[in-house]
Amino acid sequence: MTRWRLDLAYDGTDYRGWAAQPGQRTVQGVLEEWLARLLRPAEPVALVVAGRTDAGVHAVGQVAHVDLPDALDDDVEARLLQRLRRVVPDDIVVRGLARAPGGFDARFSALARRYCYRLWDADSSPDPRLRRQVTTVAVRLDVAAMGAAGASLLGLRDFAPFCKRRDGATSIRVLQELSVRRCDDPCGTIEVWAQADAFCHSMVRCLAGVLVCIGSGRRDRVWLADAAARTERHGDIPALPPGGLTLERVFYPPDEELAAQAARARVQRTMDDLPVGPVDPSSVMGGPE
Amino acid sequence: MTRWRLDLAYDGTDYRGWAAQPGQRTVQGVLEEWLARLLRPAEPVALVVAGRTDAGVHAVGQVAHVDLPDALDDDVEARLLQRLRRVVPDDIVVRGLARAPGGFDARFSALARRYCYRLWDADSSPDPRLRRQVTTVAVRLDVAAMGAAGASLLGLRDFAPFCKRRDGATSIRVLQELSVRRCDDPCGTIEVWAQADAFCHSMVRCLAGVLVCIGSGRRDRVWLADAAARTERHGDIPALPPGGLTLERVFYPPDEELAAQAARARVQRTMDDLPVGPVDPSSVMGGPE
Repeated sequence: MTRWRLDLAYDGTDYRGWAAQPGQRTVQGVLEEWLARLLRPAEPVALVVAGRTDAGVHAVGQVAHVDLPDALDDDVEARLLQRLRRVVPDDIVVRGLARAPGGFDARFSALARRYCYRLWDADSSPDPRLRRQVTTVAVRLDVAAMGAAGASLLGLRDFAPFCKRRDGATSIRVLQELSVRRCDDPCGTIEVWAQADAFCHSMVRCLAGVLVCIGSGRRDRVWLADAAARTERHGDIPALPPGGLTLERVFYPPDEELAAQAARARVQRTMDDLPVGPVDPSSVMGGPE
Repeated sequence: MTRWRLDLAYDGTDYRGWAAQPGQRTVQGVLEEWLARLLRPAEPVALVVAGRTDAGVHAVGQVAHVDLPDALDDDVEARLLQRLRRVVPDDIVVRGLARAPGGFDARFSALARRYCYRLWDADSSPDPRLRRQVTTVAVRLDVAAMGAAGASLLGLRDFAPFCKRRDGATSIRVLQELSVRRCDDPCGTIEVWAQADAFCHSMVRCLAGVLVCIGSGRRDRVWLADAAARTERHGDIPALPPGGLTLERVFYPPDEELAAQAARARVQRTMDDLPVGPVDPSSVMGGPE
């Protein structure tokens, strides 16, 4: 088998997320179906992805890998990207398809994921052409207050208050960036940039929701400190709608470190499946997604 | 009656253009229906627009006016913008609604219209979230050659070769800008900016089509010079699809010149309805649309 790296962009509006589900239109499902139709391999085609985006979430820098039989004749291989581009629906763009370097694993080799959540507030001039990728809030947002609040959440911590818990999985992550800026685009769009070794379920949408609570003045820093100290999410932490969220980029180490990084992250994934104990910082670097 | 100025943005994808047509979803039709529902005026609500965009064409800087009865009570007037924003579909954004200055006419007072046609070529990285506002061409485009060709079409001329003719209407226009640039956005989008006193039917889409013919190397400057010298459009001049086109801005003179500009343009509109004679430059300034 040969491992291939796919670089993908998609408009998530009309998908039930990345992960294949029976009877649902998903990005993984559509891509696996077309790869199978084009290649007719003996084994089912199985994509592994860096960021399992939720229903309605977009991506411009998604990365996946797939193992395909070596027996493909050269001509098929050379034309695979071109053929795949031609058949996939127009809300998916296959930006690249190339043999992956040794040790590459789209999920486990990744060092970090970077998302952007886009907002229009009362000071923005919404552009209806972009409405599926930006969330509108009716009030005016204090971008400086949001930025300060974001900075207070950086580093290694248990993000259980800011995600949808999965039983038996840790929610300890290293948040490397949570910054906020108002762009000088014609709309005055507010961008919330979040980067971490990995994200838990709904984590970016919850973090953006918390920042909107702060930016609108509905909540203050004392409330945030209290929320962040909790060990479970509660009703006061809103997850913003998925349409405002885009997976912008996935970071990988240099080729020679891909295998070692994947091995480290696989150990962490195993730990993720154990009950959560005391935090040992050395054990949570390079988390899986 | 009081005249109101509306500033509008819309995603034209799901509209049969601006102009109201029985049984069709049009931007004018939707807005007039909602204004009538909100205000219940004795007379039908009639919007007058600066740029009558075609089916599928977008706008971020559209301007219209509407005359509404003075009898509206103050409270209704103050809340009209807010109420209209709340009821229109999410592919229309009412950016502004305010009493117009004396002499204002959205169509006849306008000095110029500015459109942008957006393209992705073989060197671009298409973003599927933006696919409804950018047209993809499979080849690589020579942006410098397109720019030079655009510059050669500037000034006062009969644009009959580059538009869909309307019987009895002149196609003489003053093309003030036809420039081309590759943006430094993540997609490498190519923008064709066109500004004129007014545009004929399908004129920007035809001009962009001509530039794509040049940029792809399929046609040369000799062909363009020949085409431009014709008095009718022929099959070699393609109109690009409407989705790539956006009305970006409408220019008006200072308030004290609004009425005079409208009077000049109204004379020109009357001339438009006469058979086309020899070009008199002084008669074609400030054309109607």
